Amino acid sequence: MDDIEQLIAMLARLPGLGPRSARRAALSLLRNPETRMLPLARLMEQAATTVQTCSSCGNLDVVNPCHICTDTHRDRSIICVVETVGDLWALERSSIHQGMYQVLGGTLSALAGLGPEDLNVVPLMHRIEAGEVKEVILALGATVEGATTAHWLQEKLSSTGVIVTRVAHGVPIGGALDVLDDGTLAAALMARKQL
Amino acid sequence: MDDIEQLIAMLARLPGLGPRSARRAALSLLRNPETRMLPLARLMEQAATTVQTCSSCGNLDVVNPCHICTDTHRDRSIICVVETVGDLWALERSSIHQGMYQVLGGTLSALAGLGPEDLNVVPLMHRIEAGEVKEVILALGATVEGATTAHWLQEKLSSTGVIVTRVAHGVPIGGALDVLDDGTLAAALMARKQL
Ligand SMILES: [Zn+2]
Ligand SMILES: [Zn+2]
Repeated sequence: MDDIEQLIAMLARLPGLGPRSARRAALSLLRNPETRMLPLARLMEQAATTVQTCSSCGNLDVVNPCHICTDTHRDRSIICVVETVGDLWALERSSIHQGMYQVLGGTLSALAGLGPEDLNVVPLMHRIEAGEVKEVILALGATVEGATTAHWLQEKLSSTGVIVTRVAHGVPIGGALDVLDDGTLAAALMARKQL
Repeated sequence: MDDIEQLIAMLARLPGLGPRSARRAALSLLRNPETRMLPLARLMEQAATTVQTCSSCGNLDVVNPCHICTDTHRDRSIICVVETVGDLWALERSSIHQGMYQVLGGTLSALAGLGPEDLNVVPLMHRIEAGEVKEVILALGATVEGATTAHWLQEKLSSTGVIVTRVAHGVPIGGALDVLDDGTLAAALMARKQL
């Protein structure tokens, strides 16, 4: 494969790009090496160093802890548990959640071989043990894996005394959180119910 | 803007990516810096040097002249004129054209301020003057600009003695060539008619 074919192949591997859009993106980059391709290349090399995973909530940010974890205007007593950073970003765009987050990094999945030890929950338990948390909102996808994970987390948190809620139905069955429009997300979060 | 927002913004500027797919692509890159982001960054930096515009036909390739221009199995007597490299690639995928190409790099457009001097036709005229060309196929989009450009080229080539054809209707009105399926493209090319 020459550099052009390789560039198209690497772009096509990104989520959201099919073979056709990968070709169009590659062409646009190749036709504008100085104004598009090199600036993007340099930015990606830079971002590989500057962008880190927040050791507290699991968000991606240029600072660690992330800007959400250090924001003194947010409600530290409510933690919203999400599967991915994409879900966190989707909730942030809806501006409805004023509390903190915990990004699990996935769901329990026998198929994918993901067990409890693969999910990022230790920082959540630490924050709960520290006594500042009143409510944990489970904002997981309405999938089998999401439901399994919600059930497992509910059990795990039952002895801690915190209120565990989950986002209301409204998340389409089988759907992922980060493809929802902001209104649906906001409605689902507002109408959350205690488990 | 921090590096994350900037990465999303730069990706969203690529054709084929909306804000949502740009976010998903950025996340995928940021979550896999070593396996995805840095390899792609390095490939783009490399491609900025290796990929060149073919001085003969205007194609993009890692060699100049491009692999089509140096392919001795292709018919040098037929030149297919296209607007963009994307159109050339689309025709190559359909495998129906066994001749050569000329990429204009655009169309005549009063709106975009593009005149005859902005189109890459000098190499085409040289090849015609060299006496090896029998037919020029105009494979331009069925847009006002495409039709204007076809008409202008037909005039320009009328005194040279080469047969000028254009691809058959089948290219949807208002449509660009490189979003057509291979079958439509092939049919349009097969049913070309002399002007
Ligand atoms: Zn954080
Ligand atoms: Zn060439």
